[in-house]
Amino acid sequence: MRCAVLGTGEVGRTLGGRLVELGHEVTLGSRTRDNPVALEWATAAAERARAGTFADAAATGEVVINAVSGRVALDALRAAGAEHLDGKVVVDVSNPLAFEDGQAWLDPVQSDSVGEQIQRAFPHARVVKTLNTVNCRVMVEPGLVPGAHHLFVCGEDAGAKQQVTDLLGEFGWPAERVLDLGGIRAARTTEMYLPLWLALMRRFGTEQFNLEVHRAV
Amino acid sequence: MRCAVLGTGEVGRTLGGRLVELGHEVTLGSRTRDNPVALEWATAAAERARAGTFADAAATGEVVINAVSGRVALDALRAAGAEHLDGKVVVDVSNPLAFEDGQAWLDPVQSDSVGEQIQRAFPHARVVKTLNTVNCRVMVEPGLVPGAHHLFVCGEDAGAKQQVTDLLGEFGWPAERVLDLGGIRAARTTEMYLPLWLALMRRFGTEQFNLEVHRAV
Repeated sequence: MRCAVLGTGEVGRTLGGRLVELGHEVTLGSRTRDNPVALEWATAAAERARAGTFADAAATGEVVINAVSGRVALDALRAAGAEHLDGKVVVDVSNPLAFEDGQAWLDPVQSDSVGEQIQRAFPHARVVKTLNTVNCRVMVEPGLVPGAHHLFVCGEDAGAKQQVTDLLGEFGWPAERVLDLGGIRAARTTEMYLPLWLALMRRFGTEQFNLEVHRAV
Repeated sequence: MRCAVLGTGEVGRTLGGRLVELGHEVTLGSRTRDNPVALEWATAAAERARAGTFADAAATGEVVINAVSGRVALDALRAAGAEHLDGKVVVDVSNPLAFEDGQAWLDPVQSDSVGEQIQRAFPHARVVKTLNTVNCRVMVEPGLVPGAHHLFVCGEDAGAKQQVTDLLGEFGWPAERVLDLGGIRAARTTEMYLPLWLALMRRFGTEQFNLEVHRAV
C-alpha cells in the first residue's frame, strides 16, 4: 500500500520506518521538499521510502497518517491539500499537547479535539483517531509492553476503522485489543487521557507502557 | 476507626456500608440532620452506622471521605467546617462532572481539579485523591473486575497516602496495585480520565471495569 506519513519527528519516522519494513511504500511528508531529516530517513530506509512535501506525500498516499503535533495538524493537512485527502482514510495519531511554563497543556480540550477538527475541516476525508495513547515505539511494536493491553479507535466511517484495524494488526495489535469507541467525537476522550499518560510516564520512568481494560464478565 | 462519609448518594452509601461491614464506625453526612435517605441507610446498616449533618459527621470522623459530586465538594466541606478537617486525612473520591445538553462536562478541567481546590481551601487537611477512576461497586469490591487492575492516589502528605492505601487494602486493593502519582496536582490527571471512562462504559455496557497499567520491564 502507498502510505503518506505527515511529520518527520520521532513519531513520523518510527511509523514510516515500520511501514516500509512491512513492505509498504512510504512518503514522509514535511513542510519543504529538502528537509534534511526526511531525506536522511528516506536514504537510510529501503527503496520504498521517499521524502517530499506534505502535498507530495498526500498526493501519492492511499492512506494518510497525521504524525505532526496536534497543534499544527490542520496546517499540515491544509498544506497537504484537501483534494489529496478526499475519500481517503486519514489516520490521526496526534495529541494537541504543548508544554507551557513546564506544564503539559492540551488545546483544544474537552469541547473539541484534533480528530474532530480534522474531520470538520476535511469532511470528505475518512478520519480515524488511534494510536495517540501510546508512545511511538509501542505503536509499531506492542510486544515491547507485556500483557493484553488495548488501543482505541474512533471515527465516523466503519469501513475506515476496519481498514485501520487491519493496519494495526500488521503492527502487531490483534483486532480484539482494538476497542472501537464510536464516532470521531470520542477523540476528545482519548486526547484527554494524555495528562494521566504523562503522570504514569513520570511514575514509571519509561514511555513504554499501556493500559489493559478489564471488565466484569 | 471513626469515618465521616459526606454524601448520601450511591457512592456515599456504598462506601459507608462497606466501612461498617469492615467494623468501622460511620457517620453518613448530609446537608440536613433529617435526611430520609441517610436515616434509612443508618437504620438498615449495623449499629455502627449513624446519620447526621456534614458537620456532625466531620466532627466525629478521624478520616473524612468526600463522596458528594466534585461540583459541590467545597460547599459540603465548608458546611463540615474547617475546624473539623484540620490535621485529618480527607479522601476525595469525587469528579467535577455534570451533564449539560446530554454531554459530560468537567469543571474545573486541566488547569485545576477538585482535589487541588479542596487542598487549597483547607490547607491543614491532608487531602488524598483516589478511587475516582472506578465505579463505587468496584471501589469497595475490586474482585468484581478480573485482573490485576490499578488505582491511583495522589496528595501532598506521604503519611496520609499510606493511611489511605491501608484503607484501600481493607477494601481488597493490594498495595502493589495502588499507584502513587505524586502531589495533589496529579488529581487533574485522574479527573481528566473521566471522559474516557464514560466512553468505555458506553462501549462495554457496564460500569464494572477498570484499567491495568502494563509496562516494559
